[in-house]
Amino acid sequence: MRISELSRRSGVSIPTIKYYLRDGLLPAGRATAANQADYDEDHLRRLRLIRSLIGVRGLSVSATRDVLAAVDEQQGDDMHLLLGLVLGALPVERSGRPPRRDGAEKPADAGTGPGNAAGDVAALTAEMGWKTSPNPPAAQVVTETLETLRALGMDYDWRFLLPYAELADRAAQLDLDQLEDAGDPLQQAERAILLTVLLEPALLALRRLAQEHHSAQRFGNG
Amino acid sequence: MRISELSRRSGVSIPTIKYYLRDGLLPAGRATAANQADYDEDHLRRLRLIRSLIGVRGLSVSATRDVLAAVDEQQGDDMHLLLGLVLGALPVERSGRPPRRDGAEKPADAGTGPGNAAGDVAALTAEMGWKTSPNPPAAQVVTETLETLRALGMDYDWRFLLPYAELADRAAQLDLDQLEDAGDPLQQAERAILLTVLLEPALLALRRLAQEHHSAQRFGNG
Repeated sequence: MRISELSRRSGVSIPTIKYYLRDGLLPAGRATAANQADYDEDHLRRLRLIRSLIGVRGLSVSATRDVLAAVDEQQGDDMHLLLGLVLGALPVERSGRPPRRDGAEKPADAGTGPGNAAGDVAALTAEMGWKTSPNPPAAQVVTETLETLRALGMDYDWRFLLPYAELADRAAQLDLDQLEDAGDPLQQAERAILLTVLLEPALLALRRLAQEHHSAQRFGNG
Repeated sequence: MRISELSRRSGVSIPTIKYYLRDGLLPAGRATAANQADYDEDHLRRLRLIRSLIGVRGLSVSATRDVLAAVDEQQGDDMHLLLGLVLGALPVERSGRPPRRDGAEKPADAGTGPGNAAGDVAALTAEMGWKTSPNPPAAQVVTETLETLRALGMDYDWRFLLPYAELADRAAQLDLDQLEDAGDPLQQAERAILLTVLLEPALLALRRLAQEHHSAQRFGNG
């Protein structure tokens, strides 16, 4: 197809497509004339993937390039390797840093400090039986959250996270169920990205809806 | 306590505290001399709350003012009203807009359009038996996610969200369990904010850890 059709079918403007081509995010089409090229369904699919990463979830061009490289490097059908590459390249939403000292001294009552939070997360993953790569960024996010809660004066026992971890475990299994029948590796990679990155805000939004409902059930006067 | 001790115990610098005082986010202390004031534990608690909202989760000063006003307006012990005010004032993470037309024409194969996505979310909440306020922002986020999936060429039946909604339902009940014994309404409000806003990245991070583990279990070679 011509670039105009690629634009029409993808919803991405021609100047933006040309930018992706120059930048190497999108492979060149097959040259058909001096200033013309032909694009196929793979270009369309790749373009949609780029749009989902940059346009929808706000990834940087450089992070997007890393994700696409991970997909491209994928050899054969080692799904675990592929998922590891793809998920590893996708940024984890940060918890926000542990509260900054902000120029002030270390709070006197900030609890027992960051060392314990990391230990708590290690205890949690051990209790769940989760085997992961060493020091995954996601574990760091959980650690930071616990440090933050403690620094804010909220006393907790890490076990309060256990039932949440069990729900997360079930969610992950649902995610993987949906990859089983996704077709070829590229399609599986695309789907892993869609399910991982795009679904995240929706999952939190569902929790908000359920919070509102159950709050009314438990505490409502009507 | 003096402002220096307030700074030390909260980890917020004196200039930042003065900014919050000028801005009305933090109520004035009890004047003890021309240029001196005395602060109490309530100031410390409020300051930690402000820090958790602005410093940790990156809320704007104006959104933070709305949340604090909601806490302040709270009369008596109507927990549902309080939660509604607090959660209503807390922004929902956006899904990212449905893919922009970006100057191009509407994609020819963008699916059956946004009208259906909103209907899908209505069907989902009805199926879950969730009663919520009309048009909550969280429902909009789910709608946008579905529109995005469809525009990216992912064919879905809204029922794929049902098991996720059931997990969200259980998470919300866990959240509320932890508010039951939180003490006075201000403490409950603080706790609702901490659990809702601060826990969100951690919940997504737990899902990532579980994804990595289960991917290895299912697809790994080792």
